[in-house]
Amino acid sequence: MSTGPPALAWSAENCTVGRTMAILGERWTFVVLREVFNGVRRFDDIRRHSNIPRQVLSNRLALLVEQDILRRQPYQDPGERARHEYRLTEKGFDLYPVLVAIADWGDRYLADPGGPPVEFEHRDCGSPVHSILECAKGHRVDRPRDVVTRVGPGARPFAVSAAG
Amino acid sequence: MSTGPPALAWSAENCTVGRTMAILGERWTFVVLREVFNGVRRFDDIRRHSNIPRQVLSNRLALLVEQDILRRQPYQDPGERARHEYRLTEKGFDLYPVLVAIADWGDRYLADPGGPPVEFEHRDCGSPVHSILECAKGHRVDRPRDVVTRVGPGARPFAVSAAG
Repeated sequence: MSTGPPALAWSAENCTVGRTMAILGERWTFVVLREVFNGVRRFDDIRRHSNIPRQVLSNRLALLVEQDILRRQPYQDPGERARHEYRLTEKGFDLYPVLVAIADWGDRYLADPGGPPVEFEHRDCGSPVHSILECAKGHRVDRPRDVVTRVGPGARPFAVSAAG
Repeated sequence: MSTGPPALAWSAENCTVGRTMAILGERWTFVVLREVFNGVRRFDDIRRHSNIPRQVLSNRLALLVEQDILRRQPYQDPGERARHEYRLTEKGFDLYPVLVAIADWGDRYLADPGGPPVEFEHRDCGSPVHSILECAKGHRVDRPRDVVTRVGPGARPFAVSAAG
């Protein structure tokens, strides 16, 4: 009998992918972030543009503010009451590689026949920007097979009985 | 009165980020993918290791197979009935940069004080692997401000009235 994959020796309980997706893991959360990254920062603009139900948008924005991914910034249009718009925090800005990685995959597999609606362009040279994997020594990593998953400093043994 | 952010001129309806997250946008979907990328491929192993409710796991696996991200592969242990395990398709393997980008962010902001439970290592040189952004001319892109979002070939005008 095989002992099963090595990953089963370690707990998934403190996995940071799981924790991240507990915050980000719904369609609408990343749609909200897409809007804010694209400069659409006001509640009604986000709602109209994304067609998110009002209550869902309100909940998602509250979660993102609570998680310090967005912050509220007051503004006031002439003749209107004071409102606020939503800006990315540093923690929010750091989600940009995730957004681009998601867009790259979606563009490859889910775009309309005419192509994707949006492209990312390097401001300095005008070339398209994509998400890639690179190691700390600067080697480009093209395939998952080139990567070994190793046990990290925070790994906890997986305690559930092997008999399952 | 300002005319609002330029992104509002274009429809979000065919946005590939939104389409991608409609498939991937729940915690459990990416947790399932994490397991399979880590070599945990069998229903009971995934369920035990991730603590995903049985019915949820069954639904997520069916969705991922239907979307051609995973495929079923038969196997039979001695004295047991034939079963199947789950393997990544090419479309599934192409989600690896998204997984690493998510893990990078989660490791930075959500890890235990002791550090993340898992690390990605370049097989050839042993250095840690991370997600980065690069343009087609090979320039590294470090900040969202270095990127311009431009209208892509599949952009559709945003038709909702500006008065909202």
